[in-house]
Amino acid sequence: MSKTPILCNIGINNTEFGDNVTIIQPVNIYGCQLADNVRIGPFVEIQKHCVIGTGTRVQSHSFICEYVTIGRDCFIGHGVMFANDMFRDGSPDPDPNNWGRITIGDGVSIGSGATILAVEICAGAVIGAGSVVTRSITRKGVYAGNPARLLRLL
Amino acid sequence: MSKTPILCNIGINNTEFGDNVTIIQPVNIYGCQLADNVRIGPFVEIQKHCVIGTGTRVQSHSFICEYVTIGRDCFIGHGVMFANDMFRDGSPDPDPNNWGRITIGDGVSIGSGATILAVEICAGAVIGAGSVVTRSITRKGVYAGNPARLLRLL
Amino acid sequence: MSKTPILCNIGINNTEFGDNVTIIQPVNIYGCQLADNVRIGPFVEIQKHCVIGTGTRVQSHSFICEYVTIGRDCFIGHGVMFANDMFRDGSPDPDPNNWGRITIGDGVSIGSGATILAVEICAGAVIGAGSVVTRSITRKGVYAGNPARLLRLL
Repeated sequence: MSKTPILCNIGINNTEFGDNVTIIQPVNIYGCQLADNVRIGPFVEIQKHCVIGTGTRVQSHSFICEYVTIGRDCFIGHGVMFANDMFRDGSPDPDPNNWGRITIGDGVSIGSGATILAVEICAGAVIGAGSVVTRSITRKGVYAGNPARLLRLL
Repeated sequence: MSKTPILCNIGINNTEFGDNVTIIQPVNIYGCQLADNVRIGPFVEIQKHCVIGTGTRVQSHSFICEYVTIGRDCFIGHGVMFANDMFRDGSPDPDPNNWGRITIGDGVSIGSGATILAVEICAGAVIGAGSVVTRSITRKGVYAGNPARLLRLL
Repeated sequence: MSKTPILCNIGINNTEFGDNVTIIQPVNIYGCQLADNVRIGPFVEIQKHCVIGTGTRVQSHSFICEYVTIGRDCFIGHGVMFANDMFRDGSPDPDPNNWGRITIGDGVSIGSGATILAVEICAGAVIGAGSVVTRSITRKGVYAGNPARLLRLL
């Protein structure tokens, strides 16, 4: 016999905004900071403990997990997925203290459909569309593939 | 001259729920079964003839196609896409009898951004974020890449 | 001190429809043309200057960027991302004149989770789920992988 599910709804909650932040709804954004001139596309989820820097754009369909810090003037394409739990013991780790912290430098461009695992990406790097970034990127360049590899320095 | 389109709306229809199922709307869920303690994130679509086992979590942005059976205590990450029509004759097959049936065992963890083609994934397996699973996985281990390959046994 | 963000909402605007177009909302569609019998799934965004041909289906969670022309009777799977700005100078190019134009021929099938960079895909081609298409496809065949390669001619 079917029971009644618990229905909740997305929204924008407990979030700190700078000047001139634009959000195209529907989105699910909670517990984070969006600096001046940030622009967020539709169908986006941004979880708590995230900081999005001045002038950065997050395009439609992207998901930003907890503890992601993104710099200024970045471009996060459409359908970009961030992940910080590496399933080290073979399943999701319930302790947030064990999750990676992801830091994206200023002026980083991430192509649509990319997946970003717990890493640092240095300022000015370019990640090709559809790439899977599995390691920290510390030299400014263009990276692509699964796993993402350096194509050329910038 | 522009005509008027036929506009439909997503919803939750013809679905059987166990106890304590939580759903974050908006979602499009129809003709399936969600067992006790299942949790579904926003921007998710689950099609008919799917069964989601007790305690399993389906995160935001994921799409579960028809005829997918998922076991207990699984974690389906964000933006995971299931597909069961292999386009064998060079285009979508209109006959559902020809589509694959996908079976995911108990305790499987699938990373965000993964794509799962018609296969079996055995209990306890881990699929890395951004992977594309093109064959059945029958040994418990960690798999990643496009196509996904065994990284290590668990 | 937190400011008030500018909240906008998705919708269907400035779009030209043929006969019998079906759209499952919520979607964000603007400035494009949808021909007869087109069917659009939920959580889809289609940007301006796009043309979707007769009988083509665009499944849930897909994003079609500006300047994409899709032929007749195509199948665009779930979570397919199109991208036409190649970040040639290391960041998004603000000038649309420099973006690629993407042309998809008649009867093309694109699997779920694929990423399509600025290219031509010839009539009747099949793109496997999860593939990343980085070059033009000019011979009818089945292509898969990241980057997508020819598996077999059709």
